Amino acid sequence: MDSFEEASIDIKMEIFEAIEDNYGGVIVNMKKEEPMDFLKFHTMLKASISFWRLKGKKGVWIKLPIELAHLVNAAVKEGFWYHHAEATYLMLVYWIPHEIPHTFPAYASHRIGIGAFVLNQDGQVLVVKEKSGDMTGTWKLPTGVVDEGEDICMAAVREVQEETGIETEFVELLAFRQSHKSFFGNSDLFFICMLKPLNFTINKQDAEIEEAKWMPMEEYASQSKVNQSELTKMIANICVAKKEEQYNGFSALLTTGHSAKKCYLYSHNI
Amino acid sequence: MDSFEEASIDIKMEIFEAIEDNYGGVIVNMKKEEPMDFLKFHTMLKASISFWRLKGKKGVWIKLPIELAHLVNAAVKEGFWYHHAEATYLMLVYWIPHEIPHTFPAYASHRIGIGAFVLNQDGQVLVVKEKSGDMTGTWKLPTGVVDEGEDICMAAVREVQEETGIETEFVELLAFRQSHKSFFGNSDLFFICMLKPLNFTINKQDAEIEEAKWMPMEEYASQSKVNQSELTKMIANICVAKKEEQYNGFSALLTTGHSAKKCYLYSHNI
Repeated sequence: MDSFEEASIDIKMEIFEAIEDNYGGVIVNMKKEEPMDFLKFHTMLKASISFWRLKGKKGVWIKLPIELAHLVNAAVKEGFWYHHAEATYLMLVYWIPHEIPHTFPAYASHRIGIGAFVLNQDGQVLVVKEKSGDMTGTWKLPTGVVDEGEDICMAAVREVQEETGIETEFVELLAFRQSHKSFFGNSDLFFICMLKPLNFTINKQDAEIEEAKWMPMEEYASQSKVNQSELTKMIANICVAKKEEQYNGFSALLTTGHSAKKCYLYSHNI
Repeated sequence: MDSFEEASIDIKMEIFEAIEDNYGGVIVNMKKEEPMDFLKFHTMLKASISFWRLKGKKGVWIKLPIELAHLVNAAVKEGFWYHHAEATYLMLVYWIPHEIPHTFPAYASHRIGIGAFVLNQDGQVLVVKEKSGDMTGTWKLPTGVVDEGEDICMAAVREVQEETGIETEFVELLAFRQSHKSFFGNSDLFFICMLKPLNFTINKQDAEIEEAKWMPMEEYASQSKVNQSELTKMIANICVAKKEEQYNGFSALLTTGHSAKKCYLYSHNI
C-alpha cells in the first residue's frame, strides 16, 4: 500500500496557483522570490493549461517579473503572446477556446500632453524656445507630457513651473486635439490649458529650454510657424479669443466617482 | 601572411546594425526572419554595448519580435529592462551613461472611453442594460473603449451602432473625466459625447447587452445608481441641461496639423 501511494504522488501534476477573474479567465502572478527553471515552468504550464481547459476557462494571464525573463520563451512556445510590459514585468496572455475570438481588454493606447496658455496682467503670454525638436527658433507655449496617474490640470501647472519657474493655478481647459500614429504609433491627446500666473519673474530651470519670456499676444500669434498649420493657427485664435474674454473653456471640478474615488470632471459649470 | 589575416578576422567582433535616433541613442530592430542563437546574440550584444559606449551613445533600444523570445533573457542579463510590449514584439531599453538618469520617453499611459448621450425627437434617451459588470440592472448610456488610432467622435458612433443598431452622427463633446489606477493601473479618460440619431428602431446586436430602449430623461436621471456618486449625478445633470438647450459642449473639427496630418480639434467654434 505504501509503495502504491508513493507512485500516485509521483504522477500528480503540479498546477500553477491562479486567481479567477470575473470573465471566466485565470491570472497567474509569478513571484520573483520564487525562482523556477525553464523545464519545470514549461511542464507546469502545459499541465495547467490542460487543467484550465477541462474547467472551461477562457483567458489565461501570466505576469512574469523581469527577474524571470528566462521563462518568457516557454510561455511563447505554448502559444502565449505579449499583452503589455512595464519596466519590471511582462504580461503574457493565452486564449484557450481557439474556436472563438479572444476578448482580452486593451492596454493603454494614448499618450497625453498639455500646452499651457499663461497670460500676465499686461496681456502678455508666457513663451519658451526649445533647444531641440521641430519648433527650435519659434516662441511656443510651454508643453509637456502628462504622467500616468497625473491630473491634466496639475501636469500643466508642473510643466510651467519646471520650464519657466512661474507658479500658476489652473483656470480652464480651452480645447484639445487627438492625433494618431505619433511616437511608437501611439495615439495622442493634447490639451490646451489656461493658467493664471502667481508670480511673474521668469527663472528658466529646464536644460531643454533655450529661452523663456513674456511676449505680446499678437507677436506670438503672428509667427510663421504658428501660422504654418490650420491647427496651430486655430489654437492661437482660441487663445486670442480667451484673452479678449470671448471664449469659455471647461472648468476642472474635483468630484467623487464610483467607490468614493476622487477624479476631475472637465465641463462647463451648470 | 595568409594565416595572419585569418587570425585577425577571427578576433573581429560582430556588432549589431543600429539606427541612430535624434537623442544620442541607437535602435536595433531584430528581424524574425533572421534566427539567432542565445550565445551569439549575447556575445554580439556585449560587443555592441562596448562599441556604443566608446562612441558616446546613451540610450539603446532593442525591438525583439515574439519569434525571438528566447533572446529576451540575454538582454535582461546585460542590464536591459522592458519599455513596452505589443502582441508581436517586446521593446527593451538600456541606458549606457549610468551616472546620469535616463531620458527614455514614456509609452502610452491612458485608456480612453466614451459614453454616448443620444436623444430622440420625443426627448427620450437611448439606454442599455449590460449583462455583466458593476451596472447590471441599471439603465445606462451606451459606453465603450476608444481603440488606438480611432477618433473619439467616431468611437461613440461605432459603439452606439454596435450595442443598439442606432445610426448616429456626432454633435458635441459635453464633458470628460480623468481617473487613475483603473484597469492594470492605467489612467483613464472618459468622454461624454452627444449624438443625433438617424434612425429610431432599436436592434440590439451585442452579446454583452441585456436590453436597450428609449427612456424618458427624468426616469433615467432618477435611478438610484445614477445618483449614487457625485460624478454620475453631475453627468446626468449636464445631459439634462443639454436637453433643455442650456449647455454648450465642444464641437469636433477635422483640421490639419504639422506635416499636413489630419486630426480633430475639440473646442468651441469661434
